Amino acid sequence: MNQNLTVQEAEEHYQGLKSKGLKLDLTRGKPSSEQLDLSIGLENVLEGEFIKEGIDTRNYGELLGLEEMRLLGSEILGCKKEMVIAGGNSSLTLMAQYISNLFFQGSGKGPWSMHERNSVLCPVPGYDRHFTLCDEFSINMIPIPLTGRGPDIEKAKAIVKNDSSVKGIWCVPKHSNPTGETYDTESIDGLLEIAGLKEEFKIFWDNAYAVHDFAESEPLPNIFSLAEEKNLVNSVIAFASTSKITFAGSGIGFIAMSQANLKSFIKHYSSIAIGPDKVNQLRHINFFKDFQGLKRHMIKHADIVGPKFELVQEWLSKQNYGFWTKPTGGYFVTFKTKPGLAKEIVNLANYAGLKLTPAGATFPYGVDPNDEIIRLAPTACNISELNQAMELFNACVVLASLKKEVS
Amino acid sequence: MNQNLTVQEAEEHYQGLKSKGLKLDLTRGKPSSEQLDLSIGLENVLEGEFIKEGIDTRNYGELLGLEEMRLLGSEILGCKKEMVIAGGNSSLTLMAQYISNLFFQGSGKGPWSMHERNSVLCPVPGYDRHFTLCDEFSINMIPIPLTGRGPDIEKAKAIVKNDSSVKGIWCVPKHSNPTGETYDTESIDGLLEIAGLKEEFKIFWDNAYAVHDFAESEPLPNIFSLAEEKNLVNSVIAFASTSKITFAGSGIGFIAMSQANLKSFIKHYSSIAIGPDKVNQLRHINFFKDFQGLKRHMIKHADIVGPKFELVQEWLSKQNYGFWTKPTGGYFVTFKTKPGLAKEIVNLANYAGLKLTPAGATFPYGVDPNDEIIRLAPTACNISELNQAMELFNACVVLASLKKEVS
Repeated sequence: MNQNLTVQEAEEHYQGLKSKGLKLDLTRGKPSSEQLDLSIGLENVLEGEFIKEGIDTRNYGELLGLEEMRLLGSEILGCKKEMVIAGGNSSLTLMAQYISNLFFQGSGKGPWSMHERNSVLCPVPGYDRHFTLCDEFSINMIPIPLTGRGPDIEKAKAIVKNDSSVKGIWCVPKHSNPTGETYDTESIDGLLEIAGLKEEFKIFWDNAYAVHDFAESEPLPNIFSLAEEKNLVNSVIAFASTSKITFAGSGIGFIAMSQANLKSFIKHYSSIAIGPDKVNQLRHINFFKDFQGLKRHMIKHADIVGPKFELVQEWLSKQNYGFWTKPTGGYFVTFKTKPGLAKEIVNLANYAGLKLTPAGATFPYGVDPNDEIIRLAPTACNISELNQAMELFNACVVLASLKKEVS
Repeated sequence: MNQNLTVQEAEEHYQGLKSKGLKLDLTRGKPSSEQLDLSIGLENVLEGEFIKEGIDTRNYGELLGLEEMRLLGSEILGCKKEMVIAGGNSSLTLMAQYISNLFFQGSGKGPWSMHERNSVLCPVPGYDRHFTLCDEFSINMIPIPLTGRGPDIEKAKAIVKNDSSVKGIWCVPKHSNPTGETYDTESIDGLLEIAGLKEEFKIFWDNAYAVHDFAESEPLPNIFSLAEEKNLVNSVIAFASTSKITFAGSGIGFIAMSQANLKSFIKHYSSIAIGPDKVNQLRHINFFKDFQGLKRHMIKHADIVGPKFELVQEWLSKQNYGFWTKPTGGYFVTFKTKPGLAKEIVNLANYAGLKLTPAGATFPYGVDPNDEIIRLAPTACNISELNQAMELFNACVVLASLKKEVS
């Protein structure tokens, strides 16, 4: 519809939408209220019974979490129950606590605090919270490109071989935030090969969207099995949570690692944590019953989330600029503009009442070198808002792109 | 009854109790099931209503906690609501996160990680978790004596003046763990005077037992008011939690500090936390209604806990050895043996089926230089168990003391 517009017409269309005084938001990968309602059963599921596995869940103790909660975490992550800690309401906090462990205990060659420089590889575009965390802990970030099937292994390998400060890589291996790609076996084997080069190298495996398909999806190969074959299970530190399964702020976070890593981490963890909210863990156990129950629950999410992603695809197809991803799960669509247009499009959208994730936010230090990546998060708003938001987004893309063509 | 026993008779009495095969535990300051039952109303208090202050408590966001929860925290701690973060289920984790903030942001003179040595003063006997936390973060601990009304200020001042690595002090100012003492105005003024000597000096004010009186108690002077007068409010970092008010593992933790400190801390905190469990905060808000409701709730705890402490006093009065505290609140009684007997008494008790906190645990690095302090925690067991436990404890004290006399 926009293909034959002049700049003048595109400007008029944009101004028309702007004059509506819209208040729309596609910034955060948040579940909608409708999705949260799927889990209201959590609140009445205990029926006054707080004892589980012989434990009064209301009291102190059980640092590693309730056994059945650890089991559920292990099934989400694809590893043994003994490898899992079921923690509090945030996998991000578990990541921070693991990083703090690395600073004070280290990952094989002394505490990270002893090294002048500690670096990690950051596949881009990626999850802004990983980058903020590294920045706060003074960890140097080295961006490497994603290929659509995982990180560019050859580039990663070259960097690791040439820079002794590199000690890890952040990965969101399934329905990656924000590209939506799922790592394939070749990529995972490549990561493990890199890990094999350095004893202390850790793959931070943030499997945030492990069970979050809304359409038929490529399965994610099991990194723990592949690592086991190569005797590299100490190289993998995995994370997950129920934040986008039950209540975003009141779920259960998980961290999983080998027995050797766990032994070292528990020393640190036991000094900074008193044990998780076991009453909330029991709510989750009773609510899901088992992993099958959790998977059935995720189908209900897919029924709500799927149509929103379809709508985004429909709208984007109505204009002729840029490239975009077609994810089958997760929470994001990545839109790639012509180089140099991302900031302008985000600004145009903001001026007209549509909040978008700041351009650059999906890159370390907030810098997208080509200024071309925009992250769209369509889940939090309802269908009617999403229609308005995407119409406006298209208008911004078309206007910025046309202006660029004629300039 | 034991005063005229021979060693032989004391040994026989001890062996008689040992032969009963008891399984008793006075180690942990845990609430009893009866106490936890006081809060079962938490579980049904929401009635399916998750919206509070215009916020869907189930979703992400509100890093500092719900306003009414912050208010309740500020009333427990005696400060302004704006100074408080209402966090997750553990004040210990907030302490660890604040310490981690000091390592990466510092407290006025650069990050602690840049200094070769960071030291804190540790009033002794004190809370073992403070000491484990410091040990894990490689913070040097310097013990200073408690006087019964707070830390020995002259000793503390001398150390701070002579050792530039000293940057703080741990305090449990009310019903101190384990001595039960409450700091008086003179002690708090002294602490503030010390803080005034060094910009970066922090008073870690762990007010864990702020509302935990079970008998008429000395009020704790308000450190924030005293600090305000001296323009030293930046020197105080306060902590509290509802762990011993509602559910020990599923309560709400608080951290409070000046606006200047908060500004620096929030940068760190926002990088490592996604926001607290607001559904659980809302449960607490609805359950207590307000601070008056919380105080009424604490009277019910006092009714359960008070008689246990009376029973401990009764038993201890039946023997003639050592000194012990008579707390009016909190969770502990401190028993002071003749020098060199604490380990032996704890071992005797363990052999006979009574677990006690390891001797030395209430000192930095686990070392009680005089081997004389034993911590008793009478709340977790029931009255009948407590009777058995105290009879056995007395038998151990008498036996060890008599042996010492004749040796």
